Amino acid sequence: MKRAVVILSGGLDSTVCISEAKKEGYEIFPLTFAYGQRHSKEVEQSKKVAGSYGCSQNHLVVNTDFFKDIGSSALTAESINVPTSRNPGELDKDIPVTYVPFRNAVFLSMATGYAEAIKAESIYIGVNALDYSGYPDCRPSFIDAFQEVIKYGTAASDRGLHITIKTPLLNLTKAEIVKLGIENNAPLHLTTSCYQGREKACGKCDSCQLRLKGFSEAGVRDPIEYENE
Amino acid sequence: MKRAVVILSGGLDSTVCISEAKKEGYEIFPLTFAYGQRHSKEVEQSKKVAGSYGCSQNHLVVNTDFFKDIGSSALTAESINVPTSRNPGELDKDIPVTYVPFRNAVFLSMATGYAEAIKAESIYIGVNALDYSGYPDCRPSFIDAFQEVIKYGTAASDRGLHITIKTPLLNLTKAEIVKLGIENNAPLHLTTSCYQGREKACGKCDSCQLRLKGFSEAGVRDPIEYENE
Repeated sequence: MKRAVVILSGGLDSTVCISEAKKEGYEIFPLTFAYGQRHSKEVEQSKKVAGSYGCSQNHLVVNTDFFKDIGSSALTAESINVPTSRNPGELDKDIPVTYVPFRNAVFLSMATGYAEAIKAESIYIGVNALDYSGYPDCRPSFIDAFQEVIKYGTAASDRGLHITIKTPLLNLTKAEIVKLGIENNAPLHLTTSCYQGREKACGKCDSCQLRLKGFSEAGVRDPIEYENE
Repeated sequence: MKRAVVILSGGLDSTVCISEAKKEGYEIFPLTFAYGQRHSKEVEQSKKVAGSYGCSQNHLVVNTDFFKDIGSSALTAESINVPTSRNPGELDKDIPVTYVPFRNAVFLSMATGYAEAIKAESIYIGVNALDYSGYPDCRPSFIDAFQEVIKYGTAASDRGLHITIKTPLLNLTKAEIVKLGIENNAPLHLTTSCYQGREKACGKCDSCQLRLKGFSEAGVRDPIEYENE
């Protein structure tokens, strides 16, 4: 059975990714990064999502405190407040303060190492070029460049195993991602997107707003709970 | 003062790299990875090397247990023995069992994140294309591909700061690396290369053999101590 590493944050996008990998017939190896974020809720939810796909025994949770060490991002540095933009249209003007330096490169490097170790042929990552919040390491040109790094830098490649980065959400709107998840019976009720990481989602941070906008445009009710509802 | 992140293992090559960065006038930010190796001697030695260059306060030691988690390498998996080839000429025939999957990609990704955070313009890494032991992630084509990833994937790049990977040892023989280190007054007596990580170097593992061959060809006595001397 062909294998795929799926980078799983426990959020909406990565959960829809896992549903796509399942649909394509892969044996799934979820990979979750616990990296000095303000909360551990993402890790909890990722375990529930992995469990719902029956692949908990393949689920690797990697503690990467590195991002906290370099501490130049609102997601990891306690001293910077998470911005609560009221206008999602403003999100793409600048690279946001929540940018974690080169995060997806670190994630993809580790995912590639894991893929080599378990002889997986694909890596799924839920990057998105449309509603991507302005992160430079979510761009198609970044993914294409990283594919070349895998080509030249892996032992697997030398042995004839070409590891491919799959980005099924790259050109989808958030509304289309929601629809795809529902079509694939993805457990969207188990996902979390809020930067705050409290019991219920805040509904105010950039991530909550993008999510709510997606569900709204898809004409579907978001199954998770929000504060002040 | 311009800044450089230097990936520092405490070995010969990375120590010569730091001496090159110093010569070029950089303020140095050493970055050391403690990644579930059999020994912590490399980390100890890297601290001594950083101290000798007066940049201990910039030295970041990152715990990356990830490599142990995926455990498919002799350096991290306790169940695989480190090979002790008696013939260095055999080293390049195959990718060795000591290959840690995609290690340098993980290192470079984290170094790039660190460089972004501290606004460094260069990253030094002691990869070597000649005496490189057959690791695919030491090849020039890998480094070139990674440079493209930095170009497309960093916020720094969008802001006009182009982070450059510097590989001063890429085309040097081990003997030339030894000579360069001596020319730069690099503290070679503080370095360690042995895979075994005991008090003294074993003199038998691939890494010791490459080092001894380099010193021998350079016509210089290796200042560190070996077992059975």
